[in-house]
Amino acid sequence: MKENVRAEKSIQDYYPDDFAICYGCGRLNEHGHHLKSYWDGDELVCRVRPEPYHTGAQNFVYGGLVLSSMDCHGTGAAAAAKHRHEGKELGVEPLARFVTASLQVDFLAPVPIDGLMEIRARIKEIKGRKVTIAMTLTVDDTLCARGEMVAVEIPEGYLEKYNPPGKP
Amino acid sequence: MKENVRAEKSIQDYYPDDFAICYGCGRLNEHGHHLKSYWDGDELVCRVRPEPYHTGAQNFVYGGLVLSSMDCHGTGAAAAAKHRHEGKELGVEPLARFVTASLQVDFLAPVPIDGLMEIRARIKEIKGRKVTIAMTLTVDDTLCARGEMVAVEIPEGYLEKYNPPGKP
Repeated sequence: MKENVRAEKSIQDYYPDDFAICYGCGRLNEHGHHLKSYWDGDELVCRVRPEPYHTGAQNFVYGGLVLSSMDCHGTGAAAAAKHRHEGKELGVEPLARFVTASLQVDFLAPVPIDGLMEIRARIKEIKGRKVTIAMTLTVDDTLCARGEMVAVEIPEGYLEKYNPPGKP
Repeated sequence: MKENVRAEKSIQDYYPDDFAICYGCGRLNEHGHHLKSYWDGDELVCRVRPEPYHTGAQNFVYGGLVLSSMDCHGTGAAAAAKHRHEGKELGVEPLARFVTASLQVDFLAPVPIDGLMEIRARIKEIKGRKVTIAMTLTVDDTLCARGEMVAVEIPEGYLEKYNPPGKP
Protein backbone atom coordinates (compact mmCIF):
# COMPACT_ATOMS: atom_id res chain seq x y z
CA MET A 1 0.00 0.00 0.00
CA LYS A 2 3.07 2.22 -0.30
CA GLU A 3 2.79 3.50 -3.86
CA ASN A 4 0.95 6.62 -2.84
CA VAL A 5 4.13 7.99 -1.22
CA ARG A 6 5.47 11.11 -2.92
CA ALA A 7 8.53 13.26 -2.41
CA GLU A 8 6.35 15.93 -0.77
CA LYS A 9 5.20 15.31 2.79
CA SER A 10 1.65 14.05 3.21
CA ILE A 11 -0.90 15.57 5.58
CA GLN A 12 -0.33 12.65 7.95
CA ASP A 13 3.40 13.40 8.10
CA TYR A 14 2.49 16.60 9.96
CA TYR A 15 0.46 14.83 12.66
CA PRO A 16 1.97 15.18 16.13
CA ASP A 17 3.62 11.96 17.33
CA ASP A 18 0.78 11.22 19.80
CA PHE A 19 -1.61 11.00 16.86
CA ALA A 20 0.77 9.28 14.45
CA ILE A 21 0.17 5.74 15.71
CA CYS A 22 -3.08 5.17 13.83
CA TYR A 23 -3.30 1.72 12.23
CA GLY A 24 -4.90 3.30 9.18
CA CYS A 25 -2.61 6.27 8.59
CA GLY A 26 0.01 6.66 11.31
CA ARG A 27 3.62 6.89 10.17
CA LEU A 28 4.68 5.41 13.54
CA ASN A 29 2.44 2.31 13.38
CA GLU A 30 4.67 -0.42 12.00
CA HIS A 31 1.75 -2.80 11.33
CA GLY A 32 -0.57 -0.33 9.67
CA HIS A 33 -1.64 0.87 6.25
CA HIS A 34 0.24 4.21 6.19
CA LEU A 35 -2.46 5.95 4.17
CA LYS A 36 -1.19 9.30 2.81
CA SER A 37 -3.31 12.29 1.82
CA TYR A 38 -2.20 15.21 -0.36
CA TRP A 39 -3.68 18.48 -1.50
CA ASP A 40 -4.68 18.50 -5.16
CA GLY A 41 -6.08 21.93 -5.96
CA ASP A 42 -9.09 22.43 -3.69
CA GLU A 43 -9.44 18.70 -3.01
CA LEU A 44 -7.43 16.17 -1.08
CA VAL A 45 -6.53 12.88 -2.65
CA CYS A 46 -5.20 9.57 -1.40
CA ARG A 47 -4.54 6.38 -3.28
CA VAL A 48 -4.64 2.94 -1.69
CA ARG A 49 -3.48 -0.29 -3.29
CA PRO A 50 -5.26 -3.20 -1.55
CA GLU A 51 -3.24 -6.24 -0.55
CA PRO A 52 -4.28 -9.47 -2.32
CA TYR A 53 -5.76 -10.77 0.95
CA HIS A 54 -8.02 -7.73 1.48
CA THR A 55 -10.79 -9.61 -0.28
CA GLY A 56 -14.52 -9.48 0.42
CA ALA A 57 -15.78 -11.93 -2.15
CA GLN A 58 -13.56 -13.26 -4.93
CA ASN A 59 -11.69 -10.44 -6.75
CA PHE A 60 -13.37 -7.69 -4.69
CA VAL A 61 -12.10 -5.58 -1.81
CA TYR A 62 -13.85 -6.07 1.55
CA GLY A 63 -15.99 -3.14 2.66
CA GLY A 64 -13.89 -2.49 5.75
CA LEU A 65 -10.92 -1.26 3.70
CA VAL A 66 -13.17 1.17 1.83
CA LEU A 67 -14.58 2.42 5.13
CA SER A 68 -11.31 2.68 7.03
CA SER A 69 -9.57 4.42 4.11
CA MET A 70 -12.37 6.97 3.87
CA ASP A 71 -12.24 7.45 7.63
CA CYS A 72 -8.51 8.21 7.77
CA HIS A 73 -8.55 10.30 4.59
CA GLY A 74 -11.57 12.27 5.79
CA THR A 75 -10.11 13.26 9.15
CA GLY A 76 -6.83 14.15 7.46
CA ALA A 77 -8.68 16.26 4.91
CA ALA A 78 -10.60 18.01 7.69
CA ALA A 79 -7.38 18.90 9.50
CA ALA A 80 -5.74 20.18 6.32
CA ALA A 81 -8.81 22.18 5.31
CA LYS A 82 -9.16 23.90 8.67
CA HIS A 83 -5.43 24.67 8.65
CA ARG A 84 -5.59 26.27 5.21
CA HIS A 85 -8.87 28.03 6.06
CA GLU A 86 -7.12 29.74 8.94
CA GLY A 87 -4.32 30.87 6.65
CA LYS A 88 -1.78 28.56 8.25
CA GLU A 89 0.99 26.77 6.40
CA LEU A 90 1.81 23.08 6.75
CA GLY A 91 5.05 22.61 8.62
CA VAL A 92 4.93 26.11 10.09
CA GLU A 93 2.00 26.15 12.53
CA PRO A 94 1.13 22.83 14.24
CA LEU A 95 -1.70 20.87 12.61
CA ALA A 96 -4.80 20.31 14.76
CA ARG A 97 -6.16 16.75 14.78
CA PHE A 98 -9.73 15.75 14.01
CA VAL A 99 -11.88 12.79 14.97
CA THR A 100 -14.87 11.40 13.12
CA ALA A 101 -18.23 12.38 14.54
CA SER A 102 -20.15 10.57 11.81
CA LEU A 103 -19.44 8.82 8.53
CA GLN A 104 -22.03 7.80 5.95
CA VAL A 105 -20.90 5.64 3.03
CA ASP A 106 -22.92 4.47 0.02
CA PHE A 107 -21.46 1.49 -1.80
CA LEU A 108 -22.20 1.85 -5.51
CA ALA A 109 -20.06 -0.79 -7.23
CA PRO A 110 -17.69 -3.55 -6.14
CA VAL A 111 -14.05 -2.49 -5.81
CA PRO A 112 -11.69 -4.71 -7.80
CA ILE A 113 -8.96 -6.23 -5.60
CA ASP A 114 -6.29 -5.49 -8.22
CA GLY A 115 -7.33 -1.85 -8.66
CA LEU A 116 -5.84 1.32 -7.23
CA MET A 117 -8.47 3.04 -5.08
CA GLU A 118 -8.48 6.82 -5.44
CA ILE A 119 -10.32 8.70 -2.72
CA ARG A 120 -11.03 12.38 -3.23
CA ALA A 121 -12.24 14.65 -0.45
CA ARG A 122 -14.01 17.93 -1.04
CA ILE A 123 -14.64 20.42 1.75
CA LYS A 124 -18.36 21.12 2.12
CA GLU A 125 -18.34 23.27 5.24
CA ILE A 126 -16.04 24.57 7.95
CA LYS A 127 -17.98 25.80 10.95
CA GLY A 128 -16.19 26.33 14.25
CA ARG A 129 -14.52 23.07 15.25
CA LYS A 130 -16.64 21.07 12.77
CA VAL A 131 -15.69 20.25 9.18
CA THR A 132 -17.96 18.46 6.71
CA ILE A 133 -16.27 16.48 3.95
CA ALA A 134 -17.71 14.81 0.84
CA MET A 135 -15.73 11.92 -0.60
CA THR A 136 -15.71 9.73 -3.68
CA LEU A 137 -13.85 6.48 -4.17
CA THR A 138 -13.08 5.56 -7.76
CA VAL A 139 -11.09 2.83 -9.46
CA ASP A 140 -10.12 3.58 -13.07
CA ASP A 141 -12.78 6.31 -13.14
CA THR A 142 -15.57 3.97 -11.98
CA LEU A 143 -17.34 5.48 -9.00
CA CYS A 144 -17.41 2.69 -6.40
CA ALA A 145 -18.41 4.52 -3.22
CA ARG A 146 -19.48 7.91 -1.99
CA GLY A 147 -19.02 9.17 1.56
CA GLU A 148 -19.87 12.07 3.80
CA MET A 149 -18.10 12.77 7.07
CA VAL A 150 -18.55 15.21 9.88
CA ALA A 151 -15.20 15.58 11.63
CA VAL A 152 -14.58 17.50 14.84
CA GLU A 153 -11.38 19.13 15.99
CA ILE A 154 -9.97 17.37 19.02
CA PRO A 155 -10.00 19.71 22.00
CA GLU A 156 -6.85 20.49 23.94
CA GLY A 157 -6.39 18.00 26.75
CA TYR A 158 -8.40 15.28 25.02
CA LEU A 159 -5.70 12.64 25.32
CA GLU A 160 -5.02 13.58 28.94
CA LYS A 161 -8.74 13.26 29.77
CA TYR A 162 -8.91 9.70 28.48
CA ASN A 163 -5.36 8.75 29.42
CA PRO A 164 -5.04 9.87 33.02
CA PRO A 165 -1.60 9.69 34.65
CA GLY A 166 -0.72 6.16 35.69
CA LYS A 167 -2.47 4.54 32.74
CA PRO A 168 0.15 2.97 30.49
CA MET B 1 -9.53 -11.55 18.04
CA LYS B 2 -10.48 -15.20 18.53
CA GLU B 3 -12.20 -15.13 21.89
CA ASN B 4 -15.62 -14.71 20.39
CA VAL B 5 -15.51 -18.29 19.07
CA ARG B 6 -18.12 -20.56 20.64
CA ALA B 7 -18.92 -24.23 20.34
CA GLU B 8 -21.96 -23.35 18.21
CA LYS B 9 -21.36 -22.34 14.61
CA SER B 10 -21.46 -18.64 13.84
CA ILE B 11 -23.49 -17.07 11.04
CA GLN B 12 -20.26 -16.70 9.02
CA ASP B 13 -19.59 -20.44 9.31
CA TYR B 14 -22.63 -20.96 7.07
CA TYR B 15 -21.39 -18.66 4.28
CA PRO B 16 -20.72 -20.50 1.03
CA ASP B 17 -16.98 -20.92 0.32
CA ASP B 18 -17.02 -18.23 -2.41
CA PHE B 19 -18.05 -15.69 0.22
CA ALA B 20 -15.91 -17.02 3.04
CA ILE B 21 -12.69 -15.25 2.03
CA CYS B 22 -13.61 -11.85 3.51
CA TYR B 23 -10.71 -10.21 5.36
CA GLY B 24 -13.14 -9.07 8.03
CA CYS B 25 -15.13 -12.25 8.65
CA GLY B 26 -14.18 -15.05 6.28
CA ARG B 27 -13.23 -18.37 7.85
CA LEU B 28 -11.05 -19.09 4.79
CA ASN B 29 -9.02 -15.84 4.92
CA GLU B 30 -5.87 -16.75 6.81
CA HIS B 31 -4.82 -13.10 7.29
CA GLY B 32 -8.19 -11.75 8.42
CA HIS B 33 -10.11 -10.91 11.56
CA HIS B 34 -12.51 -13.89 11.57
CA LEU B 35 -15.35 -11.89 13.06
CA LYS B 36 -18.16 -14.18 14.29
CA SER B 37 -21.81 -13.27 14.73
CA TYR B 38 -24.38 -15.19 16.77
CA TRP B 39 -28.09 -14.96 17.42
CA ASP B 40 -28.95 -13.73 20.90
CA GLY B 41 -32.73 -13.67 21.20
CA ASP B 42 -33.99 -11.27 18.54
CA GLU B 43 -30.59 -9.62 18.14
CA LEU B 44 -27.28 -10.69 16.71
CA VAL B 45 -24.11 -10.14 18.68
CA CYS B 46 -20.41 -10.23 17.91
CA ARG B 47 -17.46 -9.48 20.13
CA VAL B 48 -14.14 -8.22 18.84
CA ARG B 49 -10.93 -7.94 20.85
CA PRO B 50 -8.68 -5.35 19.14
CA GLU B 51 -5.02 -6.16 18.68
CA PRO B 52 -2.63 -3.84 20.59
CA TYR B 53 -1.56 -2.26 17.27
CA HIS B 54 -5.12 -1.37 16.19
CA THR B 55 -4.61 2.05 17.73
CA GLY B 56 -6.01 5.37 16.55
CA ALA B 57 -4.53 7.67 19.15
CA GLN B 58 -2.87 6.38 22.30
CA ASN B 59 -5.03 3.76 24.09
CA PHE B 60 -7.90 4.09 21.60
CA VAL B 61 -9.01 1.87 18.73
CA TYR B 62 -8.77 3.38 15.22
CA GLY B 63 -12.09 4.15 13.59
CA GLY B 64 -11.53 1.70 10.75
CA LEU B 65 -11.85 -1.31 13.06
CA VAL B 66 -15.15 0.01 14.41
CA LEU B 67 -16.40 0.55 10.85
CA SER B 68 -15.20 -2.73 9.38
CA SER B 69 -16.54 -4.74 12.34
CA MET B 70 -19.94 -3.09 11.98
CA ASP B 71 -19.85 -3.72 8.25
CA CYS B 72 -19.19 -7.46 8.53
CA HIS B 73 -21.52 -7.94 11.47
CA GLY B 74 -24.29 -6.00 9.73
CA THR B 75 -24.23 -8.00 6.52
CA GLY B 76 -24.08 -11.22 8.54
CA ALA B 77 -27.03 -10.09 10.63
CA ALA B 78 -28.99 -9.21 7.48
CA ALA B 79 -28.40 -12.68 6.05
CA ALA B 80 -29.38 -14.39 9.28
CA ALA B 81 -32.48 -12.22 9.71
CA LYS B 82 -33.76 -12.84 6.19
CA HIS B 83 -33.13 -16.57 6.62
CA ARG B 84 -35.09 -16.72 9.86
CA HIS B 85 -37.81 -14.43 8.47
CA GLU B 86 -38.39 -16.96 5.69
CA GLY B 87 -38.70 -19.76 8.21
CA LYS B 88 -35.44 -21.39 7.16
CA GLU B 89 -33.02 -23.11 9.49
CA LEU B 90 -29.28 -22.49 9.58
CA GLY B 91 -27.40 -25.46 8.18
CA VAL B 92 -30.49 -26.80 6.41
CA GLU B 93 -31.28 -24.32 3.63
CA PRO B 94 -28.32 -22.42 2.11
CA LEU B 95 -27.75 -18.94 3.52
CA ALA B 96 -28.08 -16.04 1.06
CA ARG B 97 -25.29 -13.45 1.15
CA PHE B 98 -25.78 -9.71 1.55
CA VAL B 99 -23.68 -6.71 0.57
CA THR B 100 -23.73 -3.27 2.14
CA ALA B 101 -25.69 -0.66 0.22
CA SER B 102 -25.07 2.02 2.84
CA LEU B 103 -23.61 2.33 6.30
CA GLN B 104 -23.95 5.32 8.63
CA VAL B 105 -21.93 5.35 11.83
CA ASP B 106 -21.97 7.91 14.64
CA PHE B 107 -18.91 7.84 16.89
CA LEU B 108 -20.00 8.72 20.41
CA ALA B 109 -17.03 7.89 22.65
CA PRO B 110 -13.47 6.66 22.11
CA VAL B 111 -13.08 2.86 22.15
CA PRO B 112 -10.42 1.68 24.62
CA ILE B 113 -7.75 -0.44 22.92
CA ASP B 114 -7.80 -2.95 25.80
CA GLY B 115 -11.58 -3.33 25.80
CA LEU B 116 -13.79 -6.03 24.30
CA MET B 117 -16.05 -4.44 21.68
CA GLU B 118 -19.58 -5.82 21.70
CA ILE B 119 -21.64 -5.07 18.62
CA ARG B 120 -25.36 -5.75 18.70
CA ALA B 121 -27.53 -5.74 15.61
CA ARG B 122 -31.28 -5.28 15.66
CA ILE B 123 -33.46 -5.89 12.61
CA LYS B 124 -35.40 -2.75 11.71
CA GLU B 125 -36.99 -3.85 8.44
CA ILE B 126 -36.99 -6.69 5.95
CA LYS B 127 -38.45 -5.65 2.63
CA GLY B 128 -37.86 -7.77 -0.45
CA ARG B 129 -34.11 -8.17 -0.94
CA LYS B 130 -33.36 -5.26 1.42
CA VAL B 131 -32.71 -5.51 5.15
CA THR B 132 -32.21 -2.52 7.46
CA ILE B 133 -30.11 -3.10 10.56
CA ALA B 134 -29.51 -0.86 13.60
CA MET B 135 -26.31 -1.47 15.53
CA THR B 136 -24.68 -0.40 18.77
CA LEU B 137 -21.06 -0.83 19.78
CA THR B 138 -20.39 -0.90 23.50
CA VAL B 139 -17.37 -1.55 25.69
CA ASP B 140 -18.18 -2.39 29.31
CA ASP B 141 -21.68 -0.97 28.81
CA THR B 142 -20.39 2.38 27.51
CA LEU B 143 -22.05 3.19 24.19
CA CYS B 144 -19.17 4.08 21.87
CA ALA B 145 -20.81 4.02 18.43
CA ARG B 146 -24.16 3.62 16.77
CA GLY B 147 -24.69 2.41 13.22
CA GLU B 148 -27.40 1.91 10.64
CA MET B 149 -26.96 -0.27 7.59
CA VAL B 150 -29.02 -1.03 4.54
CA ALA B 151 -27.91 -4.41 3.21
CA VAL B 152 -29.05 -5.98 -0.04
CA GLU B 153 -29.23 -9.65 -0.91
CA ILE B 154 -26.71 -10.55 -3.58
CA PRO B 155 -28.50 -11.68 -6.73
CA GLU B 156 -27.81 -15.06 -8.29
CA GLY B 157 -25.00 -14.79 -10.82
CA TYR B 158 -23.43 -11.75 -9.12
CA LEU B 159 -19.98 -13.29 -8.83
CA GLU B 160 -20.12 -14.57 -12.40
CA LYS B 161 -21.08 -11.12 -13.66
CA TYR B 162 -18.04 -9.49 -12.12
CA ASN B 163 -15.73 -12.48 -12.50
CA PRO B 164 -16.19 -13.53 -16.11
CA PRO B 165 -14.55 -16.77 -17.26
CA GLY B 166 -10.86 -16.32 -17.87
CA LYS B 167 -10.36 -13.82 -15.05
CA PRO B 168 -8.22 -15.49 -12.37
